[in-house]
Amino acid sequence: MYKLFTGPGTCALASHIVLEELGLPYEAVRVDFASQAQRSPEYLAINPKGRVPALVTPRGVLTETPAILAFLAQANPAAGLAPLDDPFAFAEAQAFNSYLCSTVHVAHAHKSRGARWVDDAAAMEAMKRKVPQSMGEAFALIEHGMLRGPWVMGDQYSICDAYLFTVARWLDGDGVDLGKLPRVMAHRERVAARPAVARVLAAEKG
Amino acid sequence: MYKLFTGPGTCALASHIVLEELGLPYEAVRVDFASQAQRSPEYLAINPKGRVPALVTPRGVLTETPAILAFLAQANPAAGLAPLDDPFAFAEAQAFNSYLCSTVHVAHAHKSRGARWVDDAAAMEAMKRKVPQSMGEAFALIEHGMLRGPWVMGDQYSICDAYLFTVARWLDGDGVDLGKLPRVMAHRERVAARPAVARVLAAEKG
Ligand SMILES: N[C@@H](CCC(=O)N[C@@H](CS)C(=O)NCC(=O)O)C(=O)O
Ligand SMILES: N[C@@H](CCC(=O)N[C@@H](CS)C(=O)NCC(=O)O)C(=O)O
Repeated sequence: MYKLFTGPGTCALASHIVLEELGLPYEAVRVDFASQAQRSPEYLAINPKGRVPALVTPRGVLTETPAILAFLAQANPAAGLAPLDDPFAFAEAQAFNSYLCSTVHVAHAHKSRGARWVDDAAAMEAMKRKVPQSMGEAFALIEHGMLRGPWVMGDQYSICDAYLFTVARWLDGDGVDLGKLPRVMAHRERVAARPAVARVLAAEKG
Repeated sequence: MYKLFTGPGTCALASHIVLEELGLPYEAVRVDFASQAQRSPEYLAINPKGRVPALVTPRGVLTETPAILAFLAQANPAAGLAPLDDPFAFAEAQAFNSYLCSTVHVAHAHKSRGARWVDDAAAMEAMKRKVPQSMGEAFALIEHGMLRGPWVMGDQYSICDAYLFTVARWLDGDGVDLGKLPRVMAHRERVAARPAVARVLAAEKG
């Protein structure tokens, strides 16, 4: 059985959704950020990076959203959650997820995790001020090209949709003008309407 | 034939090395950052993100280092550059590369690409000051756990080694204490000693 270390509102939602879509038995364990549990010795023994998600598998622990998502798709090929038999199409999906991970998520993190990159408070405020712009620019690329529609990769729902949904839920709080992103917003509704996604969101709240 | 858009000293080196290791015909095209060619309409038509690497393939353009590296390994399975038949081991390699992309490369980029995340000069200086620490901490994790030795994934040279080598070459300029990273430094020498790597470094200089 898989065990997923997660936290409400975090990028771990993407992995959580994919586990639920697969219909496999798994346990979601919430890491309490309020008490800094992600930096406790117990959690660092699981993920020395002190971050969620971490997926405990019978073979060992996996971290990094793009790697976990691709693993779940590859280990459960019948679910069709990634184009596994076509290296080019698979790479396109990986490129999409890598962009979310290395550029979009990182832009967002400058709002509340500025201490990763600076020590002084004024610089952290400067970072916060630019988040609407950097997130807006990244999502403009998604709106006007990367998101093919109706799903990210086109006709087939995939791991990329769970990840885009997760990151697009941050847009409101990040001060981005949602009116400029009609396709992203429609995609967000489309994903939210999936029963597996509704179950995970309910579990996150509970 | 593949065409790789690259730039000396950039993360595109990892893709360049893997192309050379594969012994396939390819063309490396240098994007001139000094004249901001990465933001020219011509280049944005290839990669709307305005970054290198971009790999032009007969099927279309691929971006994002982890995606390009995995693609080259999957499209050329005989070269054995990734554990393709084992989803868990493949995910471990992907997780390593995703960490380099989303955490290590991003920490480094705060030295000279601060304008991505802030507008004012004082905040950019604050970012620069923290690079030795953030890069040092990330590489401490690599030194003390992630790098298995002799190669990243253990006995088998893989795409992860080309990528770690690329990023580890930034350590000197980033002000990290190399004396604390003997295993990373030995790995860097080990990769540099490969004939394909020497050829690519010579091409980057020329
Ligand atoms: N590159 C990692 C990033 C993981 C990450 O930064 N997770 C955040 C939540 S969205 C976290 O655990 N933050 C806790 C902290 O910074 O202390 C991934 O994509 O999985
Ligand atoms: N996540 C991308 C990042 C690509 C990237 O940031 N490349 C840098 C060079 S290391 C670049 O092109 N910078 C040009 C610029 O920022 O204008 C990847 O891993 O390929």
